[in-house]
Amino acid sequence: MTRDIKKIIKQMTLEEKAGLCSGLDAWCTKPVERLGIPSIMMTDGPHGLRKQREDADMVDINNSIPATCFPSAAGLACSWDRELLEKVGVALGEECQAQNVSILLGPGANIKRSPLCGRNFEYFSEDPYLSSEMASSHIKGVQSQGVGTSLKHFAANNQEHRRMTVNAVVDERTLREIYFASFENAVKKAQPWMVMCAYNKLNGEYCSENRYLLTDIIKNEWMHEGFVVSDWGAVNDRVKGLDAGLELEMPSSFGITDRKIVEAVRSGKLSENILDRAVERILKVIFKAIDNKKENADYDKDAHHRLARKVAGESMVLLKNEDNTLPLKKKGTIALIGAFVKNPRYQGAGSSHITPTRLDDIYEEIKKTGGDGTSIIYSEGYRLGNDDIDEGLINEAKKAASGSDVAVIFAGLPDEYESEGFDRTHMDMPKNQNRLIEAVAEVQTNTVVVLLNGSPIEMPWVDKVKAILEAYLGGQALGGALADILFGEVNPSGKLAETFPIKLSHNPSYLNFPGEDDRVEYKENIFVGYRYYDTKGIEPLFPFGHGLSYTQFEYSEISVDKKDVSDNNVINVSVKVKNTGEVAGKEVVQLYVKDVKSSVLRPEKELKGFQKIFLNPGEEKIVTFTLDKRAFAYYNTQIKDWHVESGEFLILIGKSSRDIVLKESVRVNSTVKLRKRFTDSSTVEDVMADPSAAVIFSPILKGITDTLGIDMNNTHDMMVANVKATPLRALPNSSQGRLSEEMLDELLNKINGID
Amino acid sequence: MTRDIKKIIKQMTLEEKAGLCSGLDAWCTKPVERLGIPSIMMTDGPHGLRKQREDADMVDINNSIPATCFPSAAGLACSWDRELLEKVGVALGEECQAQNVSILLGPGANIKRSPLCGRNFEYFSEDPYLSSEMASSHIKGVQSQGVGTSLKHFAANNQEHRRMTVNAVVDERTLREIYFASFENAVKKAQPWMVMCAYNKLNGEYCSENRYLLTDIIKNEWMHEGFVVSDWGAVNDRVKGLDAGLELEMPSSFGITDRKIVEAVRSGKLSENILDRAVERILKVIFKAIDNKKENADYDKDAHHRLARKVAGESMVLLKNEDNTLPLKKKGTIALIGAFVKNPRYQGAGSSHITPTRLDDIYEEIKKTGGDGTSIIYSEGYRLGNDDIDEGLINEAKKAASGSDVAVIFAGLPDEYESEGFDRTHMDMPKNQNRLIEAVAEVQTNTVVVLLNGSPIEMPWVDKVKAILEAYLGGQALGGALADILFGEVNPSGKLAETFPIKLSHNPSYLNFPGEDDRVEYKENIFVGYRYYDTKGIEPLFPFGHGLSYTQFEYSEISVDKKDVSDNNVINVSVKVKNTGEVAGKEVVQLYVKDVKSSVLRPEKELKGFQKIFLNPGEEKIVTFTLDKRAFAYYNTQIKDWHVESGEFLILIGKSSRDIVLKESVRVNSTVKLRKRFTDSSTVEDVMADPSAAVIFSPILKGITDTLGIDMNNTHDMMVANVKATPLRALPNSSQGRLSEEMLDELLNKINGID
Repeated sequence: MTRDIKKIIKQMTLEEKAGLCSGLDAWCTKPVERLGIPSIMMTDGPHGLRKQREDADMVDINNSIPATCFPSAAGLACSWDRELLEKVGVALGEECQAQNVSILLGPGANIKRSPLCGRNFEYFSEDPYLSSEMASSHIKGVQSQGVGTSLKHFAANNQEHRRMTVNAVVDERTLREIYFASFENAVKKAQPWMVMCAYNKLNGEYCSENRYLLTDIIKNEWMHEGFVVSDWGAVNDRVKGLDAGLELEMPSSFGITDRKIVEAVRSGKLSENILDRAVERILKVIFKAIDNKKENADYDKDAHHRLARKVAGESMVLLKNEDNTLPLKKKGTIALIGAFVKNPRYQGAGSSHITPTRLDDIYEEIKKTGGDGTSIIYSEGYRLGNDDIDEGLINEAKKAASGSDVAVIFAGLPDEYESEGFDRTHMDMPKNQNRLIEAVAEVQTNTVVVLLNGSPIEMPWVDKVKAILEAYLGGQALGGALADILFGEVNPSGKLAETFPIKLSHNPSYLNFPGEDDRVEYKENIFVGYRYYDTKGIEPLFPFGHGLSYTQFEYSEISVDKKDVSDNNVINVSVKVKNTGEVAGKEVVQLYVKDVKSSVLRPEKELKGFQKIFLNPGEEKIVTFTLDKRAFAYYNTQIKDWHVESGEFLILIGKSSRDIVLKESVRVNSTVKLRKRFTDSSTVEDVMADPSAAVIFSPILKGITDTLGIDMNNTHDMMVANVKATPLRALPNSSQGRLSEEMLDELLNKINGID
Repeated sequence: MTRDIKKIIKQMTLEEKAGLCSGLDAWCTKPVERLGIPSIMMTDGPHGLRKQREDADMVDINNSIPATCFPSAAGLACSWDRELLEKVGVALGEECQAQNVSILLGPGANIKRSPLCGRNFEYFSEDPYLSSEMASSHIKGVQSQGVGTSLKHFAANNQEHRRMTVNAVVDERTLREIYFASFENAVKKAQPWMVMCAYNKLNGEYCSENRYLLTDIIKNEWMHEGFVVSDWGAVNDRVKGLDAGLELEMPSSFGITDRKIVEAVRSGKLSENILDRAVERILKVIFKAIDNKKENADYDKDAHHRLARKVAGESMVLLKNEDNTLPLKKKGTIALIGAFVKNPRYQGAGSSHITPTRLDDIYEEIKKTGGDGTSIIYSEGYRLGNDDIDEGLINEAKKAASGSDVAVIFAGLPDEYESEGFDRTHMDMPKNQNRLIEAVAEVQTNTVVVLLNGSPIEMPWVDKVKAILEAYLGGQALGGALADILFGEVNPSGKLAETFPIKLSHNPSYLNFPGEDDRVEYKENIFVGYRYYDTKGIEPLFPFGHGLSYTQFEYSEISVDKKDVSDNNVINVSVKVKNTGEVAGKEVVQLYVKDVKSSVLRPEKELKGFQKIFLNPGEEKIVTFTLDKRAFAYYNTQIKDWHVESGEFLILIGKSSRDIVLKESVRVNSTVKLRKRFTDSSTVEDVMADPSAAVIFSPILKGITDTLGIDMNNTHDMMVANVKATPLRALPNSSQGRLSEEMLDELLNKINGID
């Protein structure tokens, strides 16, 4: 239905317009019934719908209408599967339609700067390209159902600690290459209906009133068509925020900020045009929601549960598998150990915590899939709720393990270890779980550890167990998916979307997280995740992109269609992958780019493409990638644009970031010439490095060095180094007056091309 | 002789005063003969006197009058011996007197931020306490002879790359705790006649015109009595520099800047008082030099050579010694391998490069000390001058090694690898030397490597050789000292004054050295050297403080005289050390302090005391340390002072930074209460953490949380975390108007104690 929104705005009173810019209550926009403006509802996500019951208080976050609980984003991202994410999005959109929800609050595209961030389970990756691709697919899926999304939390909200007051200090190149990049393509390509601004300050200004973020970047550069919503309670100065580009404040301000907007317009402090433009953006989305509303919508709970199981299976990462301990054989005795077997951790705590439509029983699912030939026994191993070591439970577990053919320990992080609102302060698992694993591994050679956790942990026992399966927070069908993977019904294909460091202190943010005095400086800059471990030469426990399969893949025949291109061209890369093992499986083919030599610091390599493919045994496929300028560029803060420095680049094809199997060299040439402007602080070497300036300067320099008796060809001489390092402004003195200050001015004009 | 300097100044013309503020030539101040103001001479140091011949050009840095070449500072510091440094200083002072030199340009107390800095061989340490102690002793020694020193290069001159233009960006706490601290005690305790300012900018302002550095810190805080001299050619804006506290510009400005000073005074741009004060400081030093001049002074070249040998022996560090391969037996055949045997690297290149009075022949010294029972053969192994691998030489070396009882390879860094004016770009030794070591170690189990280098190198062959002796740049008596150590005439007692990382990329400055766009940010902050490796948990190749002996020392009976003190008190620590081995030896007893828990980030531990002691076999001594406030304090930028946070501290006694053998816990209590001022950005948790504010705020908070239905005792709940993290300014909204903005203002006044 087409409407004349501008006309509607003209009919609205100032109070009505101001009112539209904040919530009716916790979840809805305000209606203006006399003008036919309805109220629309938004609810938390992103891996399931958290629509609170009507009788629930806003703070009663665990009382919501049942919805399918998919794996949380940390797990989803390990699928590296764009189509799968889109399918999850479609399912979420269907559930929203069925529940009269117009906008789902998600996905979250914040970068995993530190493994400690309490909300990492809701985020995708340490890599902006992977994160942005996953977010885009999620958004496309949801919005294909006529339901909006709210990409969050923009920007640099990478910790929970003091999130409402902390000032994140991040330089522009780092923002562009890492933290913005994770949102950028998702906004440009998928156009979420809303973008949610973060609680924190960025470079001194609250994100909720940060014009650079909300207008310059989101609206002007990325051409966002929707509007910006505040994180719940993120507003500081409402009028300043509106002026900066924050359209909707949530939740309700009980009229307080509405009045401030009205006053600001009346007093002339805020232009009414700005308010009108905000209202226009909000109305467009409200009417889009209404126009796309499906009456009497419903969804197939069973189908969604099956999807959740499939997704969980695709997301689990087989970290280690010595002696093909996995898959388990469907015979003999299997000891399932750990309280998580009965009380699994399958989702995170906080605003994303939902009430599932049902919940798989891990024990029963494994028993079912194991079939009659398999005997399953259970031992608790540890108690949930505290970390105390219970030697009695451990002894029972040892007994169960030693009497079985294989022990499968379920461990990880309990709810109280990870939640929105808190950061972890260490990377340890509860000590009773660590102790259990060590104890069981002592008595049972075939010990498998299944991890249920939202973020990396240290594994002091890593060398003592045969296999490790990282299941993350697998959602309501975790049990079935685990049974599928453990018995080989599904071949694991997940790859880590983040590095597991050996210890927390190795993490790049370690000395700058979570900051002091409400200030967190991102001093590691662009060196986040594998960009740091690779560049610093620090061995991880498990690298980014790592994940094993029950089959093997062989890579061959890398080829590029061009070896030498300008940066406005693209390069097509292809590589052949073959399943050389016995079972069908999926592989994530990863493409990284390395700048061989650069005048600016760059990471050892960066992910610039990936494809997930399915291959039957013996089957082979050609995988292709297209690389454009951005794949080779860094963000140049002087020209305020992405820039490729002409030179050689390596295209690296890997099974993980640390298992590069093929490489090819290409040359990319910049079409942009960076203009150098010389000043009297430019050094002799700077001028001599510029061919046209050197022509002018050479004879003058020779006069000076001849006077001083310095032979500039003597490259290892300190005096030569000194001359090269000398700023032009020092030449009048060091030339003993041979070059006067007037002559220097003239020289500068000449070499800068000013006549 | 007493003079009325103020009267002399009154008699000086403006031109004479301005003239006194810059050099006469490369090395001397300007005389004013009519007023009896003489010219004094200064020359390069610091580990020997570089007085250029009168016929030499300023740039002809290798043409100087012979002087004793002591080990350079990188080696000297490994002695960890204050008395020894003072003796070296005395000897240098004597040589200055003999050569009519009034001021020696040194020592250099810059911190070794990166192993790549080309001038590291001239600096002492990565640790400011050790560096400052070594510098103090050096200064005291020289100045005891009536000769001045010039402590350099202040400040943050930690690289050669673009040293004349680069801007070092360093936060205040880091400056105070690391970079200033290395100079602070040397200035306060030893009062060098001059402090030399650095070439670079610090936080945007050239050090040569940086009032904060030259006046606020040096003159006002540290009460420096001498004056500041520019590094040679470091002046940018002369008038601004003078105003900021730079008294003397060196070398001559050919009258150019003298005229600028005169003009500035005439135009009123510069107060003549400032010029007068500068002249007064300079004159005081000139007359002190003249009053302390010893006529017809001479020195004992032989005695100084013997001292140089002793010093070199005390400075070498035995890094590794498996199977007691060292000391060598005085029998059998010893293969000396490597071109360094004949052409040793014994000093660094640049302004500190001197002409030695004589130079030990390593081969001859080893032959002499080895005696008749020992057969010494020599093999070149590699050529100096290029890095090409010469298989012929390597084969000869292998033959020599395999035919001998032990092979001693002399390797390290050739001159062109390390020099003032350049930084290294990697930490590798020449590939022909690495190859030689691997090849020899393959054929000779008893392979010893002697390293001649000014700074750390990577050692890919570290596990393949039996012993490694780090000799640094050992000065002119290197040969004799090496013979002493290798045969056990002298028991090695040096300890590393810097960390040797496994690889360059592990260094804390790696991602921020040498900077981009003339800007180097010290993003590792206070985490320099072992402070970083320890805190980040990165294993070094050889840790700070490491060094082996031919005997063993046993530590016992640590005791502290107080277990609980206030920060204006001192703690005396004692520890018993016994030589339990067969030979006499010296041990450096190291004391580190660890803050067990701190609200600000602190290094894992910090060196706060050391003592070098001599023990005969079986002998034991009690070593004592006195720790004052500073040993426990960090620099608090809010109160602009050193501050001890009340709590538990560990006193760690170690043989090295990674070999802590004893520890004791003490409690130190602050006598300073940090005053907290609350604002509307303070969080609920901030207020509740302050007992007196909490009394006022508690009932208000309870009203709000009761309304919202939140139980604040539920510590793992996200809503509770949210409330705690809420800034006060958000309470009017989140309390749904229960707390109005007016009430909030009133609350703030109350909790800040304002009535």
